[in-house]
Amino acid sequence: MTPHQRHGFTCWLTGLSGAGKSTLALALNEALQARQVACELLDGDVVRTNLSKGLGFSKEDRDTNVLRVGFVCGLLNKHQVNTIVALISPYQATRDKLRDFLPGFIEIYVNCSLEVCIQRDPKGLYKKALAGEIPKFTGISDPYEAPIAPDIVVDTERFTVEESVQQILGYLSENGWLRE
Amino acid sequence: MTPHQRHGFTCWLTGLSGAGKSTLALALNEALQARQVACELLDGDVVRTNLSKGLGFSKEDRDTNVLRVGFVCGLLNKHQVNTIVALISPYQATRDKLRDFLPGFIEIYVNCSLEVCIQRDPKGLYKKALAGEIPKFTGISDPYEAPIAPDIVVDTERFTVEESVQQILGYLSENGWLRE
Repeated sequence: MTPHQRHGFTCWLTGLSGAGKSTLALALNEALQARQVACELLDGDVVRTNLSKGLGFSKEDRDTNVLRVGFVCGLLNKHQVNTIVALISPYQATRDKLRDFLPGFIEIYVNCSLEVCIQRDPKGLYKKALAGEIPKFTGISDPYEAPIAPDIVVDTERFTVEESVQQILGYLSENGWLRE
Repeated sequence: MTPHQRHGFTCWLTGLSGAGKSTLALALNEALQARQVACELLDGDVVRTNLSKGLGFSKEDRDTNVLRVGFVCGLLNKHQVNTIVALISPYQATRDKLRDFLPGFIEIYVNCSLEVCIQRDPKGLYKKALAGEIPKFTGISDPYEAPIAPDIVVDTERFTVEESVQQILGYLSENGWLRE
């Protein structure tokens, strides 16, 4: 057992709305479970319902949400359960705090240009945001700070979901997070 | 492996402030860890800081807090990590909801009369509540609904912490929650 395997990892997917975080998180979760790797997916919607009812989209509330999800990841990681998180998590300083208290933190930048995210607009949110109907919408009326030194960058404009999953699995394997 | 051992249990300690929940939870956690049982303690203070910042003491906020902690227990239990919770959790209907979604829910009533809790007053809160300085204080100006059909009742007026721990361990053992 390598030192890494004494606690779990957290694959933290950060990126714009529509970048493909949830889709990728779901596929990664399936790929890990197929390999018998204990894993829990914490997606934005599940989190909003069960952990963050009442929180809004101010910087303070976004930070509280991110750190709270990180706290839950820490509880699971401590017991060798790995976690996958799909959350916009727009602030670098807040992601840095996660790295400080999660020994298995892996920052994954789900990179996709704003233009393409607006074209995809899977939930119709950009349309509303651009019409001024949603205040504090990341990328439109609220900041997104792209990761300065992410552990992994996946490019969802150029690569398929399956290719990105393989990229992440490759990283996990090379860094001793998967038992062979 | 018994069916129980496919998921973890949650020892949910409910009772008045000062009844002895935190002390008992801490001792139970130590006893389980000494037996190599994977276990996580979620105490009121940890919860307030990391999961429930911003929640107050209205019925709605108390319920949100209780269900949120239950959600986290569910995540851990699902991966065979047992949990111990020490929270006043004053409403029967809310504890019933926990039982509905936690397959390993064990309701433990930490029973101690209000008179004795007031005498103990470890944090000086009853004094303030009786002086009207703390609104919505359970047992004084807010309701506490004693469990109707708890799985275990521990009596902290008559028994020591160690005796209560043994009582709970006995229950866990008899009900197939501990590997012998």
